[in-house]
Amino acid sequence: MRGLLLVISGPSGAGKGTICRALRAKIPQIGYSISATTRPPRPGEEDGESYFFVDREKFLKMVKEGAFLEWAEVYGELYGTPRKPVEEALARGQDIILEIDTQGAAQVKRCYPEGVFIFVIPPSYAELERRIKGRGTESPAAISDRLAWVKKEMDQLDLYDYVVVNDRVEDAVAKIEAIIIAEKCRTRRLKNTDWYELFWS
Amino acid sequence: MRGLLLVISGPSGAGKGTICRALRAKIPQIGYSISATTRPPRPGEEDGESYFFVDREKFLKMVKEGAFLEWAEVYGELYGTPRKPVEEALARGQDIILEIDTQGAAQVKRCYPEGVFIFVIPPSYAELERRIKGRGTESPAAISDRLAWVKKEMDQLDLYDYVVVNDRVEDAVAKIEAIIIAEKCRTRRLKNTDWYELFWS
Repeated sequence: MRGLLLVISGPSGAGKGTICRALRAKIPQIGYSISATTRPPRPGEEDGESYFFVDREKFLKMVKEGAFLEWAEVYGELYGTPRKPVEEALARGQDIILEIDTQGAAQVKRCYPEGVFIFVIPPSYAELERRIKGRGTESPAAISDRLAWVKKEMDQLDLYDYVVVNDRVEDAVAKIEAIIIAEKCRTRRLKNTDWYELFWS
Repeated sequence: MRGLLLVISGPSGAGKGTICRALRAKIPQIGYSISATTRPPRPGEEDGESYFFVDREKFLKMVKEGAFLEWAEVYGELYGTPRKPVEEALARGQDIILEIDTQGAAQVKRCYPEGVFIFVIPPSYAELERRIKGRGTESPAAISDRLAWVKKEMDQLDLYDYVVVNDRVEDAVAKIEAIIIAEKCRTRRLKNTDWYELFWS
């Protein structure tokens, strides 16, 4: 069977980074996409590890060639998910997680509607506010920007198949594991495999 | 949140009875529907335990009143799933399992499309044949009748959201548990609850 493309989004402060790390530790065979970016590498960052570093010209050429499943410009730098490694992994049956924002998810859904779209949210808006403020690293203006952005992201909920409330990380991870198992039992996925012929053979 | 209506079908020999008993033992809070039937009680059968025993006149009156989620005539006797106890359980948030055939499932789907439709199958047709013959209780004619019926039931696969291959009972039960957890995270189910308002409050 083809692998599942798991698209995980959620507002900043929902804890999707923590969840993805925990999933990775628990299910090591899941693949993670490495993004391409035009931003310069930070000290210690190796090309091909956390990012593929490319210049703007090369990035825009890749956009033209349809080499990205999704891409976006954030604070003047370009970020994108290369299509080829994702498609190769899915073809060999490996599940892949993309941790991207709602705009990226909308792009992925257009070319890959059979993806599994999961939105991670904190238990409540009040809790989210507490988490974002609790970091203590951001100015009041940046905090209110973030909270406004959360409302915008929450409006995109209908794009997603599942909502996972991140109350406790272990519970959220267990729910995503259950979603993976359930999706592999979906009739429409099985009918696209040779399972049905195998059954009768 | 409303409970889930889990509709479990599958050809005779797929082991759905064993799976439902194992599920019941593992998740005791799941409810099971008790069918109404016109067939006479067997020695030791109490009314309201394995069946509600009603006469034909009463049964047909209930059909007219829309009191059944689904009903059918099998070898001259009527069998049906009473609607009211199922709806009451779902309304108070209890999940309910209906173990019914594909014809019954099609009826349930018409009035309850938000149900979770699961088709249990054995790992292969050859294995199914082996299981049905292995019982040693049926004539060759009855066996070939059963096998013909299996082919007919397998044609209804598209009615179902999920296919659970029953290779090992524990694995099949774990898959159904995962399906229950995943379905409770579905965006469209959450949006029908007060969860969304609660989030912002």
